[in-house]
Amino acid sequence: MYKVVIDTKGADKGVGTIIRGVKGALEKIEGLAVLLVGDEADILSECQANELDMERVEILNATEEVTNYDSPVTALFQKRDSSLVKAMEALSKRDDLCGFVGAGNTGALIACATKYLSGKERVRPALSAVLPSIGGGFTCLVDTGATIDCDANMLLHFGKIGSAFMKKMYGISNPRVGLLSNGAEETKGNKVVKEAHQLLKNEEGLNFVGNFEGSNALGGGCDVLVCDGFAGNQVLKVTEGTAKRIITDVVKYAKKTGSEEIMKLVGYLMSIYDIGSLGGGIVLGVEKPVVKAHGACDEKAILSTIKIVLNMAQNKEVFEGEDAINGEN
Amino acid sequence: MYKVVIDTKGADKGVGTIIRGVKGALEKIEGLAVLLVGDEADILSECQANELDMERVEILNATEEVTNYDSPVTALFQKRDSSLVKAMEALSKRDDLCGFVGAGNTGALIACATKYLSGKERVRPALSAVLPSIGGGFTCLVDTGATIDCDANMLLHFGKIGSAFMKKMYGISNPRVGLLSNGAEETKGNKVVKEAHQLLKNEEGLNFVGNFEGSNALGGGCDVLVCDGFAGNQVLKVTEGTAKRIITDVVKYAKKTGSEEIMKLVGYLMSIYDIGSLGGGIVLGVEKPVVKAHGACDEKAILSTIKIVLNMAQNKEVFEGEDAINGEN
Repeated sequence: MYKVVIDTKGADKGVGTIIRGVKGALEKIEGLAVLLVGDEADILSECQANELDMERVEILNATEEVTNYDSPVTALFQKRDSSLVKAMEALSKRDDLCGFVGAGNTGALIACATKYLSGKERVRPALSAVLPSIGGGFTCLVDTGATIDCDANMLLHFGKIGSAFMKKMYGISNPRVGLLSNGAEETKGNKVVKEAHQLLKNEEGLNFVGNFEGSNALGGGCDVLVCDGFAGNQVLKVTEGTAKRIITDVVKYAKKTGSEEIMKLVGYLMSIYDIGSLGGGIVLGVEKPVVKAHGACDEKAILSTIKIVLNMAQNKEVFEGEDAINGEN
Repeated sequence: MYKVVIDTKGADKGVGTIIRGVKGALEKIEGLAVLLVGDEADILSECQANELDMERVEILNATEEVTNYDSPVTALFQKRDSSLVKAMEALSKRDDLCGFVGAGNTGALIACATKYLSGKERVRPALSAVLPSIGGGFTCLVDTGATIDCDANMLLHFGKIGSAFMKKMYGISNPRVGLLSNGAEETKGNKVVKEAHQLLKNEEGLNFVGNFEGSNALGGGCDVLVCDGFAGNQVLKVTEGTAKRIITDVVKYAKKTGSEEIMKLVGYLMSIYDIGSLGGGIVLGVEKPVVKAHGACDEKAILSTIKIVLNMAQNKEVFEGEDAINGEN
């Protein structure tokens, strides 16, 4: 039995969306149980309305909510009875809980993960997104927004934890690590990127393959793409925005022409480029799987996020765990 | 008669591509003449092979070439007989030349533009791209790669010259200026972006409309989008890379299904998203129009780049010029 902690607060579409996503997961995944954290009355009422199997549901009441306007510090120190803090605390203390899913404030999530799950080393965790690359593989983009101002050592750290993650989770024996820059040449980049290039190049045991431009970010040339949280956020959101925009254009064109062929194409494109449903951000550098769903997530996204957590929890067991997520190669 | 200076060096596909692009422009645009700068023998031979109207062609011989591996300083001080330096020098000295087109090293181009064309103020020029936004308008992205490490004052300057450009060139009376960040809230951003937000907000005469995320970069919510050259380069290239990738997927799908409807759709999408053919980067903050074509440009891109220069030169005359490009609102 795998039990996942779910923060029921913070989704743009409300607690009902989260509960319906959980219902889908309970129906589809045998051996799954959940700890739902949030307003107990709201949770109960949604569970009843959606007819959840309550034998696999535990509820933990939390009287406060971390909003997108709260700073990470506010969340950690002034909202100790929030669903986020209580969920993370439970995950760190209870051995029966295998991972976390939430859709709320990213900065607060990272701060809580650092406090409760960063282990002895206390290195700041990173947020990553695993995106489909050209050629059918996946690229782990790290960081996508946990640390906005980075120094070169942080970028080196991202390379290490990203590499460890792709090794353990995707079975890639020697992951190729790339660095996002404004040109493929070693001399290209802002100050921090240029310095990070040298650190990554000289790091033993890391398969550093050089700089990648934005146009090749998901070109399949690397398994891990290192960048600061500001640039990574741009890569993720510009990819998403452009894909959404083009698909919208195709839908309009299909409606105008009435072509069924083109409507089928839309379905095909959505299955590849509906990045939201890939499950949002995976927190790297923590002791248990923590996955953030998009704020704008729907039920399907919650289901796929839970699946990612389970997949990570199962892999973590396979790989013993002692060097799994913490960056040692 | 409008005479445009063309650097014939620096295009990935060689001097022939440039000359064929010029031939197309001379045929399509009445009243256009060109000064071609580069290896005289090469230019002459390509002009003959492509049967250019030599009455509208002047050639300026240059024995050196600035490559993508040269630093801006090398280009300026050690390659004084390069096509780039000679072209810029001619543009700054001769009143009969109205603007510049080139496809070579961006950093060197900006350095030369600063030396020869930044006027009394000597403020570093910026590189911008004018991209089609959702809803049919255009967004001027600035900077897209001229200055990789920026401080907050530079970002304010980009807002001002971008706003002046969209006012003069696109006739927008009060251009909306946005700031690229990792969240719409005022508190989001890296250190420089947060500081720039306050400067932009407090700048009188500037219609600052707040932060934009990457997903809304081209959403039509602003006419000018301010960012440092590193982030701007990502927005430009990730948009381009994603569009190219999706269109490739659509082409594959069309071939697999044999659908003519979908092949027509490909043509439609290419007409919107073939960013390369939009003409590359426009240098803002200089005394005469300077436009950079993509290194990978084809003949069509050279033609459209020349058109942009002419359009700018004509508008500059209409608007008298004294406050046209230099950022005064």
